[in-house]
Formats: sequence, structure tokens, C-alpha cells
Amino acid sequence: MSIEKTVERKTVIVGKSKPLLNYVTACITMFNSGAEFVVLRARGEAINMAVDVAQVLKKRFMSNVQVSNIVIDGENVTSRDGRQLNLPVLEIELSIPK
Amino acid sequence: MSIEKTVERKTVIVGKSKPLLNYVTACITMFNSGAEFVVLRARGEAINMAVDVAQVLKKRFMSNVQVSNIVIDGENVTSRDGRQLNLPVLEIELSIPK
Repeated sequence: MSIEKTVERKTVIVGKSKPLLNYVTACITMFNSGAEFVVLRARGEAINMAVDVAQVLKKRFMSNVQVSNIVIDGENVTSRDGRQLNLPVLEIELSIPK
Repeated sequence: MSIEKTVERKTVIVGKSKPLLNYVTACITMFNSGAEFVVLRARGEAINMAVDVAQVLKKRFMSNVQVSNIVIDGENVTSRDGRQLNLPVLEIELSIPK
């Protein structure tokens, strides 16, 4: 029998509609409640917002946060008028080194 | 005396004004003319375009291209009305594995 330690890993979905600081405070709350990794995930036009959230968090709020991994990907989505779109996806993994 | 082999590394600055395929063809041209690494660099609202360029290049034109590194950063810029802005910057390094 093995006992595995589960790594606390939480995801923040970044959109376009809410203000930047909402996502920044979501990350801070997750780190403060014990998350080891916080992943910022954004699609399409929200991608620049995700990069901005990571930068503002690091520079203004938690200077000990590091970007531990970045992944880009694509996702097939059907738009409202029925067309197939291939949206770009960006995932930024943040962590606090011990 | 040592002879160093220089690594061919070229940068494509991705903006918002030109169509996506302009940047895709720029990458293809650079790889075909011998570049080992092509870096897509974008600031602010052009960041999602850079991710899209990398995806379209990989999926539709050059399936052997790999994303070898991704860096996020910030850049201080003075806007036209004199304010200091901190723009997010994304750099995607593409390469062809041998």
C-alpha cells in the first residue's frame, strides 16, 4: 500500500469580461489557502489578460511567485453561427518555491 | 583559437494590424532559409495573435515544428498621453528538432 501526497493544484479560468484584479485576487486567495500550483488558463482574446494577471501578481502582490511552466494549445469550438473555430489556449502555471 | 558555430535565431515581431498568415509565412520563410530557432514576440493585445500563429503554423503548415520555450515578461512603455504603462510580453520559441 502506498500513501500518495496529493499536490494541491488549482485553475483560474481567465475571461475578458471581468476586471484584471478579480483574477489576481483569485490567485492570491488560492495560494493563501494552501494551493501549491495555480494555473491561469485563457482562450482566444483573453490570453493577453492571463499574461497580464501573472505579471501584476508577481510585480505588485506576491514577489515570491514563479512561473513554473507555460503551455500553448488549441481547442476546437463551435461558434454561435455553427462554424468550427480553432481557438488558441494558453496555460500559465504559477508556484511558490519552498 | 576557437571556432564557434553561431546558432541561427530569428525573431518575428507579431502585431495586431496585419493578417495572421503574414506572420505564419514569415516563420516558414525563416525556417526554410536555415534558421534553427524562430522567436515569436508580441506585446499587449497582440499576444493572442502570437499563440494563434504558433498553432496555425504547427497544425496546417509545418507539423515538425516544436515549441521549445515560452517566456512571459513585462515592458514599461510610455503611451501617447504620457502615462507609464506596463505591457505584458510573450515570447514563443519555435524550433525544428533534428
